[in-house]
Amino acid sequence: MSGPDDDRFDEFDWIEQDLKPLAEGAPEALGLVDDAAVIPARPGFDLVISKDAIVEGVHFLPDDPLDLVARKLLRVNLSDLAAKGAAPYGYFLAVAWPGDTTRADRRAFTEGLKADQAAFGLRLMGGDTVSTPGPFTASLTILGWIPTGALVRRDAARAGDVVLVSGTIGDGGLGLRAAQGTLPTLSDDEQLALADRYRLPRPRLGLGPALRVGAHASADVSDGLIADAGRIAAASGVRLTIDLDRTPLSASAKHWLDGQPDRLAGLIDLATAGDDYEIICTTPPDSVAPLRSAAALLGVELTEIGAVTDGVGVRAVYRGAETPITRAGYRHG
Amino acid sequence: MSGPDDDRFDEFDWIEQDLKPLAEGAPEALGLVDDAAVIPARPGFDLVISKDAIVEGVHFLPDDPLDLVARKLLRVNLSDLAAKGAAPYGYFLAVAWPGDTTRADRRAFTEGLKADQAAFGLRLMGGDTVSTPGPFTASLTILGWIPTGALVRRDAARAGDVVLVSGTIGDGGLGLRAAQGTLPTLSDDEQLALADRYRLPRPRLGLGPALRVGAHASADVSDGLIADAGRIAAASGVRLTIDLDRTPLSASAKHWLDGQPDRLAGLIDLATAGDDYEIICTTPPDSVAPLRSAAALLGVELTEIGAVTDGVGVRAVYRGAETPITRAGYRHG
Repeated sequence: MSGPDDDRFDEFDWIEQDLKPLAEGAPEALGLVDDAAVIPARPGFDLVISKDAIVEGVHFLPDDPLDLVARKLLRVNLSDLAAKGAAPYGYFLAVAWPGDTTRADRRAFTEGLKADQAAFGLRLMGGDTVSTPGPFTASLTILGWIPTGALVRRDAARAGDVVLVSGTIGDGGLGLRAAQGTLPTLSDDEQLALADRYRLPRPRLGLGPALRVGAHASADVSDGLIADAGRIAAASGVRLTIDLDRTPLSASAKHWLDGQPDRLAGLIDLATAGDDYEIICTTPPDSVAPLRSAAALLGVELTEIGAVTDGVGVRAVYRGAETPITRAGYRHG
Repeated sequence: MSGPDDDRFDEFDWIEQDLKPLAEGAPEALGLVDDAAVIPARPGFDLVISKDAIVEGVHFLPDDPLDLVARKLLRVNLSDLAAKGAAPYGYFLAVAWPGDTTRADRRAFTEGLKADQAAFGLRLMGGDTVSTPGPFTASLTILGWIPTGALVRRDAARAGDVVLVSGTIGDGGLGLRAAQGTLPTLSDDEQLALADRYRLPRPRLGLGPALRVGAHASADVSDGLIADAGRIAAASGVRLTIDLDRTPLSASAKHWLDGQPDRLAGLIDLATAGDDYEIICTTPPDSVAPLRSAAALLGVELTEIGAVTDGVGVRAVYRGAETPITRAGYRHG
């Protein structure tokens, strides 16, 4: 964000010129001229709501392009809907802009919202825009629909369930290091691909129908596989055991891991890094095959990575032996 | 906010110890352990949603007690519901805490939420808590219910309507000056009462039933009477004429105005200051009496302050003559 608003393009112009078009086609938004939005009841459906905030320098790098920041903010929230099996509907946005914000900054942020609104079928429904003497800060409240009672909860894992995870684990964390230039052992192409994975999560929205039918419990992997497994365990009152050897890895992550002096330490790194935005879920053994097949039809690979038992907390095993994990996943400030 | 967390009471402890009790009695919140909240459809009702953000040093004073900041944040949002005729239901909260936040800070903020949850029948349903290198920043998304189709819109004022406003105007702006110590002409008691009015708005939730039946258009007075009248005019495609002489004033505001060298300039000050959180609405002439009676039964005085005509924008008159207003109300950064 360089230089002040030379053309006095302020919050109010931003709403008028940039945000109002993002609310077109959403009667709920009342044209963004009212005090509130109004969501008509949709019989047969529950509304699913999640809210996440991001701060420059804490959740994204000061150099990150603002269009990507906007898209990441949307996608982090969409990932919460994905984990619950819900379909995206609309969102509310509050942004605190620093004093040196330029028109180009605002436009870039808007363009990011616009691109992902189109990609995910979303509409802006309301919000607030303010100034701040501090860093760029934004919070987004996302709304989704789910058939009544079909929400896939975090607290419904049961002893005997199998633990599965979508896609690959650890790319988000490696991507952060690539973006920071601290991942020199990989090729430029690999670093670019990983950094992109960090900056632009792919929320697993396609999984919804499979999760709603086949999963007991589900959460998204935002703070690291082990940390999020631990939260399912805590919420459900069970123990989750994760087999680190079975963690699904991308080719780049495998390449990185092969270069590590200590393979186990490397695997722990990957399983405790954040920003994967994959889905971890549990299901009874006889539902594993149908759930994996349904997910595959929806374009997502699910990998068995562990089991649910009576007990407390999360346990990691490596080559059959229990492995203490001291750093239970990256905690976003 | 003085001194660092000496006892390592961080965001996660805050959620666990302080926030979870605020979600008790709200099954929608899923115990605050899930990725999202789930709102069951309520047949016959629409959901009304509003979102506002506040930044320390922009929307409240750095010395303001954090329990009052929390209550003001809730009440500013409740005022939006009040203007729409909706009844409070629940809220989502995102807070960015500075590095020097103490446990006492977090507790004070929580105590404010707790007090107003009880006062207004609200429950915490979800949100996010993060750290920031900048000032304290928070955003709140509030949910309310309204009978299907009964929302009182901002864009429904019609030529021929009468303009009414609740309570008294200008106390919020005088209260800000009192809190800043720049209002020396009033007594200490008057200054304390006005500062309290600034720090702790009284959202006009009681007006809902009257507004839903009797008002064409409605908005809350958050950015100043003239500015918010102008927004009704712009949204509705009409002109609002406000008679400054008829602006309802508190005894303290009258006292302050009597001490001003220029009475008109003083009235303009009061009509363009923010933070009143009263309701401005329009209604056809034959509905004025029943609307005022209904409001009086609900404990709120409505005062006629102007008229709606064909035309554009807002026009202020004083002693029968049009008065140019150069500063159309305080714009919150």
